[in-house]
Amino acid sequence: MKNIRSISCSTQFCAVIGNPVAHSLSPAIHNAAFEELGLDFVYVACRVEDVKNALAGMRALESFRGMSITIPHKIEAMQHLDEIAAVDRSIGSINTVINVQGKLVGLGTDGPGALKAIVDAEVEIEGKNILMLGGGGASRAIAFTLARNARLGKLSILDIDENMLRELTADLKTGTDTFIQSKLLTASSLAAEMEDADIIIHCTPIGMHPNEDASLIPAELFSPEQVVFDIVYTPLETKLLTEAKSRGLKVISGVDMFINQAVLQFEHFTGVDAPVEVMRRVVLEQLGS
Amino acid sequence: MKNIRSISCSTQFCAVIGNPVAHSLSPAIHNAAFEELGLDFVYVACRVEDVKNALAGMRALESFRGMSITIPHKIEAMQHLDEIAAVDRSIGSINTVINVQGKLVGLGTDGPGALKAIVDAEVEIEGKNILMLGGGGASRAIAFTLARNARLGKLSILDIDENMLRELTADLKTGTDTFIQSKLLTASSLAAEMEDADIIIHCTPIGMHPNEDASLIPAELFSPEQVVFDIVYTPLETKLLTEAKSRGLKVISGVDMFINQAVLQFEHFTGVDAPVEVMRRVVLEQLGS
Repeated sequence: MKNIRSISCSTQFCAVIGNPVAHSLSPAIHNAAFEELGLDFVYVACRVEDVKNALAGMRALESFRGMSITIPHKIEAMQHLDEIAAVDRSIGSINTVINVQGKLVGLGTDGPGALKAIVDAEVEIEGKNILMLGGGGASRAIAFTLARNARLGKLSILDIDENMLRELTADLKTGTDTFIQSKLLTASSLAAEMEDADIIIHCTPIGMHPNEDASLIPAELFSPEQVVFDIVYTPLETKLLTEAKSRGLKVISGVDMFINQAVLQFEHFTGVDAPVEVMRRVVLEQLGS
Repeated sequence: MKNIRSISCSTQFCAVIGNPVAHSLSPAIHNAAFEELGLDFVYVACRVEDVKNALAGMRALESFRGMSITIPHKIEAMQHLDEIAAVDRSIGSINTVINVQGKLVGLGTDGPGALKAIVDAEVEIEGKNILMLGGGGASRAIAFTLARNARLGKLSILDIDENMLRELTADLKTGTDTFIQSKLLTASSLAAEMEDADIIIHCTPIGMHPNEDASLIPAELFSPEQVVFDIVYTPLETKLLTEAKSRGLKVISGVDMFINQAVLQFEHFTGVDAPVEVMRRVVLEQLGS
């Protein structure tokens, strides 16, 4: 048991910033992990409107070691950092800041968290056709990460927002050498793309609590051997995943990506391997499963 | 036992900033007090060089509720706050900042902590002649606080630094209506002032660890009925206090002032009465008594 009385002058602290931030799971996940490993860290949550000064403060406060950044600050935060990896600049958002002796280094763990979920599920991406549904922030992070970590077959992206789609496609063509195909999302484009997709990654809010009854993909479009990854994790098993499973497809839950992004943050904050099972348990407890 | 796993999105945090800050007792004192009362707070320590941005960050981080400010930032911090009480502006330094929904309010608890130590010792200051030895920051805080809280007989101040003395005297004459007398500290001015002093407050570093063998006041200058207050608290009983006690004088230890300044900070941070005995116990433990 790590009591708050053990906090001393050498304790480092981390925080999640966002607005709102009242329902963040991050304090519970990270404090449990710090305690599990006996690390001299604590983690708090801060509602923030003024991202610039929150980051200026982090730079000035020497024991403010790490920050998780959530909505709506993932894009703006980038302007106020000292160093950002090329892949994260391409993605255009970050969710993590590390204070390296007053130098703020920004990075994203959503893409790597998704990749780790795929790898942990023993799903091979090399040479495979990936179909991504939705072209928003999470989709960008996943698309860039996959495209930079493997030679994909093709990467297809469908979305209802033509501008968002055009921008993401152009950025991916500049930032990676993957064969990219993007189309407006319609019943027929979806049916066509489902035909030669090996891995389907669902990155829209469809099926998310409180709309658990919805799924973007009609079940009759599934083919055997396809893998379905839904980044939605409330509920833990979306209708999309339930239907895919019932057809015998391999599925990956968004909760794995969520846990992994926290695991990777933790490892950046502390420099040590995260206690993954403890973190998973906390997430599942907090999500009420 | 308040475990760090109980830290949630509603937890507020406080920090001491200074440079260096590695030996601050504040995290131990305040966390013990938070735990004692079951308050949803944690307290950390941060080495800080850039006070301005540390405070800008505090303003932006909504759950950053309170700050203790220590050397060398007690004066500069004042420039970056939104509100400072008149008495603290006269004193010219602060040791506490409260974040009131993004408005930073600065105040000092050293003077009130000293006054409380005197009051708790059941020493009356009304109409009494006070002799202060040393005219530095702590002395300023105590002098203004006493002068604004009672009609003193006279307030005499001795120091070896003529400029510091002149400035403090002028400020006290402007900011209070107390009869002030200041003189260069010499063996003869000390002997003369000791003759009609009722309460002697020692605010120089003489006698502080590692120079425990020193005392500014020759023991033969003490008179019965005098009260001697030494703001030095390492050692807990300085040579000055030992000698005063051995002559039967009432003494007040700097540790009481130190505990009180923390107690008052705690009450400003949390809005509830501090668990004084718990805080005293932590201070005495940490000081190795």
